[in-house]
Amino acid sequence: MTEPALRIAGIAGSLRQKSYNRGLLRAAVAVAPADVRIEIADIGALPLFNEDVRAAGEPAAVVQLKDAVRRADGVLIATPEYNYSVPGPLKNALDWLSRPPAESPLRHKPIAVMGVTTGGFGTARAQLALRQALLFTRSLVLTEPEVFASRAHELFDAESNLTDEKVREAVRALVAALAAWTRKCNGVPAA
Amino acid sequence: MTEPALRIAGIAGSLRQKSYNRGLLRAAVAVAPADVRIEIADIGALPLFNEDVRAAGEPAAVVQLKDAVRRADGVLIATPEYNYSVPGPLKNALDWLSRPPAESPLRHKPIAVMGVTTGGFGTARAQLALRQALLFTRSLVLTEPEVFASRAHELFDAESNLTDEKVREAVRALVAALAAWTRKCNGVPAA
Amino acid sequence: MTEPALRIAGIAGSLRQKSYNRGLLRAAVAVAPADVRIEIADIGALPLFNEDVRAAGEPAAVVQLKDAVRRADGVLIATPEYNYSVPGPLKNALDWLSRPPAESPLRHKPIAVMGVTTGGFGTARAQLALRQALLFTRSLVLTEPEVFASRAHELFDAESNLTDEKVREAVRALVAALAAWTRKCNGVPAA
Amino acid sequence: MTEPALRIAGIAGSLRQKSYNRGLLRAAVAVAPADVRIEIADIGALPLFNEDVRAAGEPAAVVQLKDAVRRADGVLIATPEYNYSVPGPLKNALDWLSRPPAESPLRHKPIAVMGVTTGGFGTARAQLALRQALLFTRSLVLTEPEVFASRAHELFDAESNLTDEKVREAVRALVAALAAWTRKCNGVPAA
Repeated sequence: MTEPALRIAGIAGSLRQKSYNRGLLRAAVAVAPADVRIEIADIGALPLFNEDVRAAGEPAAVVQLKDAVRRADGVLIATPEYNYSVPGPLKNALDWLSRPPAESPLRHKPIAVMGVTTGGFGTARAQLALRQALLFTRSLVLTEPEVFASRAHELFDAESNLTDEKVREAVRALVAALAAWTRKCNGVPAA
Repeated sequence: MTEPALRIAGIAGSLRQKSYNRGLLRAAVAVAPADVRIEIADIGALPLFNEDVRAAGEPAAVVQLKDAVRRADGVLIATPEYNYSVPGPLKNALDWLSRPPAESPLRHKPIAVMGVTTGGFGTARAQLALRQALLFTRSLVLTEPEVFASRAHELFDAESNLTDEKVREAVRALVAALAAWTRKCNGVPAA
Repeated sequence: MTEPALRIAGIAGSLRQKSYNRGLLRAAVAVAPADVRIEIADIGALPLFNEDVRAAGEPAAVVQLKDAVRRADGVLIATPEYNYSVPGPLKNALDWLSRPPAESPLRHKPIAVMGVTTGGFGTARAQLALRQALLFTRSLVLTEPEVFASRAHELFDAESNLTDEKVREAVRALVAALAAWTRKCNGVPAA
Repeated sequence: MTEPALRIAGIAGSLRQKSYNRGLLRAAVAVAPADVRIEIADIGALPLFNEDVRAAGEPAAVVQLKDAVRRADGVLIATPEYNYSVPGPLKNALDWLSRPPAESPLRHKPIAVMGVTTGGFGTARAQLALRQALLFTRSLVLTEPEVFASRAHELFDAESNLTDEKVREAVRALVAALAAWTRKCNGVPAA
């Protein structure tokens, strides 16, 4: 008997058109098994988080992002590292996602994290900072494998499509682990 | 002999009109000694950081913020805590400030941090996260005093003006320490 | 049908005889349901971690601690905050627990964290630092509830026995959540 | 006119005899200019921190370490990364150093941090964790340069003596920056 298909929302922490992290996310889409659909959500149209704006009625881009995450069984985030931490635009998206009126769609949501950087440390510090924010939202963040990709310019082509096979295998393993984790988390009552 | 006046750029991490952290910053403006002028800079008009946008020419709001910080002798940041970390809009401002073309105006800049929250832990986690980002920019962040204000609704009036005298004294001490630190950092060659 | 009893290893991050965190752990023992046995393990007899010592043969106290954690279905850690982080003796215990020869008994182990401090911020920073270390070990750390107890001297008697009912209820809820989480984690294949 | 000689206390976070971080510290001793003397202090003889022990009278090894740090004009710490954080024995040393009866010798002390690991990320996470602990002690931690040495086995000989010239130059630059920073911090009233 086949398991029902999983829907995963993909979020890239960089807004650049040829972002390596968007490329990493496209690689995840490509290597995902047939029963795992990863749909990339947009965080670039969000306004800066402002409680006055939120209280006056959530902007359409916020409603859309919240719906995308709520509909998804799990989330896959690809983040660069800006200033030893999570990019402002990604943190801004998490801030919108975490706020009322409805319960946050991040709550109890299975999430996996990966990242690629032009530097040498694979976004290790950004991923820790991201996990800290996702603790507040009570998200269920996968602990392994961790995917840290360094020296991005050696891993992607000029269109920021992933060319490195070792990283592709790491992404494949992460997607498989996220699928298993999502099924496990959603199949039994959350703790 | 009087010391030359210091110019401090004030940045609030919340965009809400009646933000407690803006109120904390206004309290700092009010208690600053005559030779320390704190001018509040705006981060709410910035677009989300996007390297494509930056490469095409810095938006006016970015140029304006960079100029404000560059002109200032020091910076005072008042931050709320969102999701156990720095608010997205504040991180977004730091991301813009840290990027080329010119050297970041945050580099070697004396900075003090404070924060107020409706919760009980005084933005302690956000301030640590903020210090981590400001390490990357090689800013010279004051280590003490730390100002952690909790249960904001007991400290401010309905217009978010600070009414608590104990917190006011803590802000006064922080401004005095930032002034001394700024003079020390700028008076001798940076390490 | 009754579920099989769970065995939980309790670890206190402070070595002081009348430690508040030991008191918090004793409160957990006392409020645990009949089918959850919490046995307090000792980390005070460990030597400082030294790879030369380890390579020459694990000291008896290390073997004993590893066995206690390995036998347990889950772990409950009560930590104070030293210097905005995990106490040295507790980190030392985690360092021993994480090393070869055998696979770390912390790996895939369900763990809950709580803490009490004489200060006001409930060991919030220490608990984040602890979660960071337990990510490396691939432990399955419960995300909620978080138990942050402040102003310890108002919560415990002279023998460091918990007297505060609100904190006792928080501990009871944490133990219940850890039990459910442990059953969930161990009942299905680890992700 | 020559400046007076500086005395720097060196601390290695690993207790292993052939520790790479001890080797890195020895390299610092060797490249230090004639007027900077780095003396390596021992943290391996310390007991685990225990407030009862401290209250009964500081052990000789604690007194000795405190004296070594107090006498020094600045401190240089070489740390490995254990479990994404500071090694237990190093945190234990900081815990002892931070406690009464006398004011902590770490207070307002100029400190530089470096680290080497067999892994790929240069102890980046441990150094951030170390900086967090040293914020509590109000130490004056140098922000740059940061020295992150990876793949230790390619950088040191069988006796853990540094053989890599690029890392040696990085250590030389760090020692020079620490010397300048120490003179700056000690030459004017602390902020």
